Amino acid sequence: MNTYLKALLLSTTLLLTSTAVLAGSELTTLLMLLHENGTITTEQYERVLAEANATEKESKLEKQELQAALDKATAVEVTVKGGIKVASKDGSFSTKLGGRLQMDAAYYGEDGKQQGDGTDIRRARLSLSGKMYDNWGFKLENDFTKSGLAGLTDAYITYGGLARHKLYLGHFRDAIILQELNSDNDTQFMERSLVSAFAQSRHMGFGGMYTGNNWTGALSVFGDKAKVNAGTDDEGWGVVARLTTTPYRVDNDLVHVGIASDYRKLNTGTGALSFSTSPESHLGGLKLVDTSEITKADSFQISGLEAAFVKGALNGQAEYVRADVERNGISDLGFDGWYGQMAYVLTGESRPYKDNKFGRIKPKSIFGQGGTGAWELVARYSTIDLTDKDIVGGEQDNFSLGVNWYATPTIRFMANYVKVLNVDGGEHDGVEPDIFQTRFQWAF
Amino acid sequence: MNTYLKALLLSTTLLLTSTAVLAGSELTTLLMLLHENGTITTEQYERVLAEANATEKESKLEKQELQAALDKATAVEVTVKGGIKVASKDGSFSTKLGGRLQMDAAYYGEDGKQQGDGTDIRRARLSLSGKMYDNWGFKLENDFTKSGLAGLTDAYITYGGLARHKLYLGHFRDAIILQELNSDNDTQFMERSLVSAFAQSRHMGFGGMYTGNNWTGALSVFGDKAKVNAGTDDEGWGVVARLTTTPYRVDNDLVHVGIASDYRKLNTGTGALSFSTSPESHLGGLKLVDTSEITKADSFQISGLEAAFVKGALNGQAEYVRADVERNGISDLGFDGWYGQMAYVLTGESRPYKDNKFGRIKPKSIFGQGGTGAWELVARYSTIDLTDKDIVGGEQDNFSLGVNWYATPTIRFMANYVKVLNVDGGEHDGVEPDIFQTRFQWAF
Amino acid sequence: MNTYLKALLLSTTLLLTSTAVLAGSELTTLLMLLHENGTITTEQYERVLAEANATEKESKLEKQELQAALDKATAVEVTVKGGIKVASKDGSFSTKLGGRLQMDAAYYGEDGKQQGDGTDIRRARLSLSGKMYDNWGFKLENDFTKSGLAGLTDAYITYGGLARHKLYLGHFRDAIILQELNSDNDTQFMERSLVSAFAQSRHMGFGGMYTGNNWTGALSVFGDKAKVNAGTDDEGWGVVARLTTTPYRVDNDLVHVGIASDYRKLNTGTGALSFSTSPESHLGGLKLVDTSEITKADSFQISGLEAAFVKGALNGQAEYVRADVERNGISDLGFDGWYGQMAYVLTGESRPYKDNKFGRIKPKSIFGQGGTGAWELVARYSTIDLTDKDIVGGEQDNFSLGVNWYATPTIRFMANYVKVLNVDGGEHDGVEPDIFQTRFQWAF
Repeated sequence: MNTYLKALLLSTTLLLTSTAVLAGSELTTLLMLLHENGTITTEQYERVLAEANATEKESKLEKQELQAALDKATAVEVTVKGGIKVASKDGSFSTKLGGRLQMDAAYYGEDGKQQGDGTDIRRARLSLSGKMYDNWGFKLENDFTKSGLAGLTDAYITYGGLARHKLYLGHFRDAIILQELNSDNDTQFMERSLVSAFAQSRHMGFGGMYTGNNWTGALSVFGDKAKVNAGTDDEGWGVVARLTTTPYRVDNDLVHVGIASDYRKLNTGTGALSFSTSPESHLGGLKLVDTSEITKADSFQISGLEAAFVKGALNGQAEYVRADVERNGISDLGFDGWYGQMAYVLTGESRPYKDNKFGRIKPKSIFGQGGTGAWELVARYSTIDLTDKDIVGGEQDNFSLGVNWYATPTIRFMANYVKVLNVDGGEHDGVEPDIFQTRFQWAF
Repeated sequence: MNTYLKALLLSTTLLLTSTAVLAGSELTTLLMLLHENGTITTEQYERVLAEANATEKESKLEKQELQAALDKATAVEVTVKGGIKVASKDGSFSTKLGGRLQMDAAYYGEDGKQQGDGTDIRRARLSLSGKMYDNWGFKLENDFTKSGLAGLTDAYITYGGLARHKLYLGHFRDAIILQELNSDNDTQFMERSLVSAFAQSRHMGFGGMYTGNNWTGALSVFGDKAKVNAGTDDEGWGVVARLTTTPYRVDNDLVHVGIASDYRKLNTGTGALSFSTSPESHLGGLKLVDTSEITKADSFQISGLEAAFVKGALNGQAEYVRADVERNGISDLGFDGWYGQMAYVLTGESRPYKDNKFGRIKPKSIFGQGGTGAWELVARYSTIDLTDKDIVGGEQDNFSLGVNWYATPTIRFMANYVKVLNVDGGEHDGVEPDIFQTRFQWAF
Repeated sequence: MNTYLKALLLSTTLLLTSTAVLAGSELTTLLMLLHENGTITTEQYERVLAEANATEKESKLEKQELQAALDKATAVEVTVKGGIKVASKDGSFSTKLGGRLQMDAAYYGEDGKQQGDGTDIRRARLSLSGKMYDNWGFKLENDFTKSGLAGLTDAYITYGGLARHKLYLGHFRDAIILQELNSDNDTQFMERSLVSAFAQSRHMGFGGMYTGNNWTGALSVFGDKAKVNAGTDDEGWGVVARLTTTPYRVDNDLVHVGIASDYRKLNTGTGALSFSTSPESHLGGLKLVDTSEITKADSFQISGLEAAFVKGALNGQAEYVRADVERNGISDLGFDGWYGQMAYVLTGESRPYKDNKFGRIKPKSIFGQGGTGAWELVARYSTIDLTDKDIVGGEQDNFSLGVNWYATPTIRFMANYVKVLNVDGGEHDGVEPDIFQTRFQWAF
């Protein structure tokens, strides 16, 4: 290499390095310069250069090995917050092992009808749920307070490969009545309101949910509840639709409105139908209003109108639900009920909302880690009328107050006072107890 | 160091580095050369050398720390494909949390006997299985569609510390009838053939399996099914043996032949024995052939002859099974049945085979990730005769067709058409319905 | 920089580096020296220096990225030893999925009363337990050998945010009788001694445990056992207290002494009370001593006195337990019993002790990994008297011998011989069988 070329090369190199200095090349550069300056011989230059190149090669290999080890170590992300969740890095797979435990104690003020005070395991569940091959979802949950199939709650598969649609197949909850769709982990009272008399819980079915920008629509067809044998009669079936919208939504504040309908044709043979509900307290087991079996029932339709709002720490929810029963050869029947409830979070958290239902408050500070948890006050009025024509199931009005303490995002303590204001008609006419009950819950 | 020695050293070093250049030493070498050339003073040389050595030491330490952190991060490998599997790096331990869900719908063409159309959760299971301390294995699986002990399926321990042997202790499946040994996750029809009348399912027992190069042998002794109390009668017991061989095997193509025998002595007191089977459809619950209780039965022997082949996308399986019953003071009885089935995988996958049974097709392309899944057509003829001497349980012949769609390795949809060709004798003589039924399954 | 300053700086640098050589700066130092020596020009010096700085910067960035990746990979620690445990690095969260399986076989020598020989699944459990938000603990365990709520064992929440205190809320075991508090995974015989007639198992309750330096105190209030509805009668309730101390403790050797009391008021309505126990063998189901229902029982008190020691491979345990029953309008009743047992571990392991109860031996060498496991010999005498006044439940004395093989820390095989020495009074007067029974267990 002649001096001219060297100078050219050098200036070019300097030009390049002035804008982007070549990292890692400093020893090589120094070597070159020392060689050019004549400080070291060509032999010496080449010897050290060979060593430098070997080092670089080895270093590259080490980095590759390291990267491979790191890739392996981070191929899945495991998280633990009570439950265990494992997710593959590429997002194709994730599985969560979750659980919940709810334990109650209740005291019943006596008013004509003795109910046992005591304690109760309300729910004790484990669940396995997740995602497979990008677009498929699955869930299996069992409640250990019940035996066999009665303990099986969610058990389904989903497919999410269509834009904005999610398909469901299996044993899942009918999309009707907002208070039923909010998980019992998240409801603001220990028990849902009196209109749960019309709740349909889960059936075997197939359905889809569409999620628009500010609305959702769900449509499903269902068979009967899960069972092992069909017996000799054809199963009943149902069609359920629900439409919700959030006409106003700014950050956490929102207005939610929805309508829903559940048409159900009863089992051809043993289609026993009845509507009843406990007085918003599970432990005593007494149902103050109860239609008993409605004979000759052929089909029924549940219709629901729901509205809710969140404004900062304040939120409210109300629903009107109506059941129309068709009977063979006798006149039709109609029952209905409604409730309204308000909640205020003393510690300021907002009630979370996702898709078309509400979640559980996530406390900003955690008890046990120096914080206070979140505190919430709730009030509810609810009423139901299960009397029509020849069916005298009774009317009932309840007023309830509650305090909820969200100690951590996974732990909640609840205290409820329920005053049965009025029971009119039916077997328990005039039985109007007040009830004090508490719950603790962990859920994740 | 004199010049001669230096020259010697230098030439030796060059010799060595010409074949294996010393990586990481380049700066030290340059220093030495600059020192030799007199470019830098001895003091300067030693100062820079000290710094270089300190860097090397620190770098080694960093690498060790990094390696330790990496070792910790990769001490176990966690994988998620629906189920969660955790395996220790050294292979001593591994545990898998798995599950399955199977949901059916069925329509029964009426033919003299009404069966209810409807839906059904066929199986809903969670399992925990794995390996401990290199040679011990364990499994516990529960089916939530059943209550208490009836839901417990596999519950055992294994020991694999003997060459080619695996020992089993606990509640596991009798090694008899190929269609029973193939997991219900993997069977090609929704329900096993009519010869499942002779299936013995699981008992409490102890056994071993030997795996040769192209054959397996299994021998077990069993008590009764799992239960909590023995009552006042001694349990029944059984001895089960099975021998299989693959005389031909090239890649996935193979011929499998096996014989098996299950001798069972009945419980001394309440040893009720009967053989019956549903018409290859579970939901309706009706059993078209049924011996009802065989009184005075003392012991019985099930004998089976099985053969199967795989040739590319085509495969077949056939079995003959016979039950011989000894009775106290009355003549002995004999019942038997057989089936043959063929399957063709339209998308070309081969039916997998391991040890002595078949697995589930693994689709080459996955639906939901741009692929089609695997599609399979299946056909089966099966027949059973449960009539002998004074016992008139009936004879039955079935023909079935099916389509299976393996959307992903973990998700399968099945559709079966079953035509009961003939029921001759017994309570349901002449009841010959056709059945259309579907299933979806996730299993991992 | 003049020469004087340079010399000063150099000597200072040398001084510093003589005690702490600056790692990573060697090239920069060399550059500086070569520049000072005039070997390279200022331009050359600056050029190489810029490259070195760029390298250093890039290297720092790489290290930060690496550290971030490593932090993510080690954010949780997953361990597998049969069970799966996931713990967050900061110790705030940890969750364990555990299980146990116990399988028995029993042979009953006949002595006037036939009991069925056979096999049994004694326990088959899965559990999810852990820690959340530093101070909260939780557990949910289900036994699949039982149906519904009967299978639910531990189901509670704990709070550990108070010094030396741990609070419990939920369904947990009454702190009474040492042999009951030692987990059935850890007891030295297959079944607990005859005084388990007085065991109270688990109730719904709230309690606390204080752990001093060499003593513990526990106090709880309980409602009834877990159930879904209270019915019309108020639940029974109880108060349980236990005080234990280890007056002597050097390494593993120790003396443990404790007293406990359990007062229980029966359910107002259906408060059926009876005491009975199987002959230290579960499978047969026969209870040789049994008070049958004690009518008009109002409340009862269980009192226990317990003592135990560990001296190297030798250990012993003894308890006296007494039940006093108050009846409405009739004279009170008193029943009692005691047992003493000794164990010697042939392979030298010590019985582990923690807080106020004993654990399971951890074998020093592992069978299946070249070792022998641990071998233990045990002997026990136990006696109970369930006869008082008008109640003739019978007296019973048992002597038992056992061998335990701890193949691995998670796997145990047990063989017990039980000789019923005497049954005096009651329905089974004089029925004195001997029993041989075995168990295998995996538990983690």
